[in-house]
Amino acid sequence: MKFEITNENNNARNGKLSLEHGNVDTPSFMTIGTYGSVKTLDLNDITNTGSQIILCNAFHLLLRPGLEIIEKFDGLHNFMNWSKPILTDSGGYQVFSLAKINKLKNDGVEFISPVDGNKILITPEKSIETQIILGSDIMMCFDDCTPYPSNRDDTQSSMELSIRWAELSKKANRSAQPLFGIVQGGMFPDLREKSLSELTNIDFDGYAIGGLSVGEPKEVRNEIVSHIGPNLPIDKPRYLMGVGKPLDIIHAVRNGIDLFDCVIPTRNARNGQLFTHHGIIRIRNNQYIDDKKPIDSECRCYTCLNYSRAYIRHLDRCNDILAARLMTIHNVYFYQDFMNTIREYIKINKLDDYIELLENIYSYEGD
Amino acid sequence: MKFEITNENNNARNGKLSLEHGNVDTPSFMTIGTYGSVKTLDLNDITNTGSQIILCNAFHLLLRPGLEIIEKFDGLHNFMNWSKPILTDSGGYQVFSLAKINKLKNDGVEFISPVDGNKILITPEKSIETQIILGSDIMMCFDDCTPYPSNRDDTQSSMELSIRWAELSKKANRSAQPLFGIVQGGMFPDLREKSLSELTNIDFDGYAIGGLSVGEPKEVRNEIVSHIGPNLPIDKPRYLMGVGKPLDIIHAVRNGIDLFDCVIPTRNARNGQLFTHHGIIRIRNNQYIDDKKPIDSECRCYTCLNYSRAYIRHLDRCNDILAARLMTIHNVYFYQDFMNTIREYIKINKLDDYIELLENIYSYEGD
Repeated sequence: MKFEITNENNNARNGKLSLEHGNVDTPSFMTIGTYGSVKTLDLNDITNTGSQIILCNAFHLLLRPGLEIIEKFDGLHNFMNWSKPILTDSGGYQVFSLAKINKLKNDGVEFISPVDGNKILITPEKSIETQIILGSDIMMCFDDCTPYPSNRDDTQSSMELSIRWAELSKKANRSAQPLFGIVQGGMFPDLREKSLSELTNIDFDGYAIGGLSVGEPKEVRNEIVSHIGPNLPIDKPRYLMGVGKPLDIIHAVRNGIDLFDCVIPTRNARNGQLFTHHGIIRIRNNQYIDDKKPIDSECRCYTCLNYSRAYIRHLDRCNDILAARLMTIHNVYFYQDFMNTIREYIKINKLDDYIELLENIYSYEGD
Repeated sequence: MKFEITNENNNARNGKLSLEHGNVDTPSFMTIGTYGSVKTLDLNDITNTGSQIILCNAFHLLLRPGLEIIEKFDGLHNFMNWSKPILTDSGGYQVFSLAKINKLKNDGVEFISPVDGNKILITPEKSIETQIILGSDIMMCFDDCTPYPSNRDDTQSSMELSIRWAELSKKANRSAQPLFGIVQGGMFPDLREKSLSELTNIDFDGYAIGGLSVGEPKEVRNEIVSHIGPNLPIDKPRYLMGVGKPLDIIHAVRNGIDLFDCVIPTRNARNGQLFTHHGIIRIRNNQYIDDKKPIDSECRCYTCLNYSRAYIRHLDRCNDILAARLMTIHNVYFYQDFMNTIREYIKINKLDDYIELLENIYSYEGD
């Protein structure tokens, strides 16, 4: 892995991240492909949206289809037939949010597989071994995700457990694949600082801010991001996990973040919520029933070049899953185009102008 | 409309059907696009499967999105953004099979809309007017579909009603759009003959065999097709409605049929039943869990060129609707490729050799 910063605009920066399977222009939005597929999109679709890297999940893939199958294909890239970079999340977050019965052990988490009812223990070593076999371009430490809200003591011990697991994760990495540490510490700025300083002592290839977008108010989240973002090691890629909406992203970029992921563009697309240069439209609304315009007249995606709002709304009402795909293509393209615009504004040193513009567009959307 | 026969092999024939929106090589399989979309497929997908004409349904489109909307788009081609031929079914069959509460009137059928509960009367005039506004390349007469089984008297009066409606349909066609008559008469060969002779007196641009694939045994169906098929006017296109599986199609081709439609390739694809050059495979079977081969090694469709059985099975198990699309692409491509092979065998006067080959492949599939 190589990371080179090409432009700076105050704390914001443009960079080029060189990974085993290709280059990523930062700030970058990683499209979500949890189970080794970006829901509804084929390989050409993903490429045509401008996505340079996708995010898959070690926890989900471990359960389905299972590691032996992906191993038979010599890794996730071959299994998916996707030749560009993949970042894999470790599964720390999912073990807590999705597995109903789980037990925290010192060396990992034990839970009942929702797929076949088997008891599974995930440890930092198991998570890293899984990610090595998946063949990800960037692996994430196995961490303990602190729930929101949590008091100071609980947050501190959770953060300390994550640090111990970060050490074990690093030790378990017998591969050349880069591994990122994850800053925890909940909504307590000093615990965040402590977490960051411990992680930099261990020394990772990049640093993520985890444990946000877990239900906290936007203001609290922004405070943590603006406090920790600019203090993450300056020469390493910085990744804000699970965030977010366009305004959240641009504020984080202003605080020096390079990488993002979020389910919003893909999940909202499947529910008919579409991003445009003039705000969000909800295609199921009656007003679009005979609307001949594309979703977004300024967009050059396959969907906007070929289909009207009225037709997409019709497909959606007929439960034709083509609707879900066409809307996903649009939203993912929109997000990638948005990141491209951010990079352009950083290049000309005018990111704040773009933020002002966006705040006007999204002011009425609420949080 | 122009129809030219280019090769003959006994009763089977190759032809070129020239329609307002393009040419169709016959024998041709029309892919089903009931609601103005081939479920899961975008415009490029449909073209890339080799489909030259699709079938949409006047009844369904009348209910959803409604005629006013399609009229605003100046027809179905614009609404869908599909520039190739469309045949529209009149809705006769659907009025009986789908509308729960319906009442046969001398001049049409009254039923309760399943979409909004309104009372709707469809008459031959209303069906033709709808198809004119849709702008179809081929329109179908509004007919009364005889249920199976039906006794001779019921079949006869139903057939006579269809003849009367055929006259009214023809009279209602104020457009230059070609209109096909539909031979009814259930499983009674002499009633079929009577229906055909009345229809040819009225004089249509093409002739269809309707009222089959309604639950009758395959042998009964084949008997009707081989009895009536070769007697349909030789210089007009001949269309067997709602049929069928590869063996049904090739037997009908041998009896002089030029056009087909059927839900099997698309519907079965969504259920994981896939056609191959070596028979049908069911992708959900456990044996494909780690199968690196494409669905069909001899197939050149997008799905087979890019994806393994194991991966498609994984997508299907994860409920990723990409699976439904990839399987639909394959099955439709397979059917179009099959029709192409039929045309090649007719050209070299060896259709019977191909039938023998197919009978071996599908012998174990049952009906």
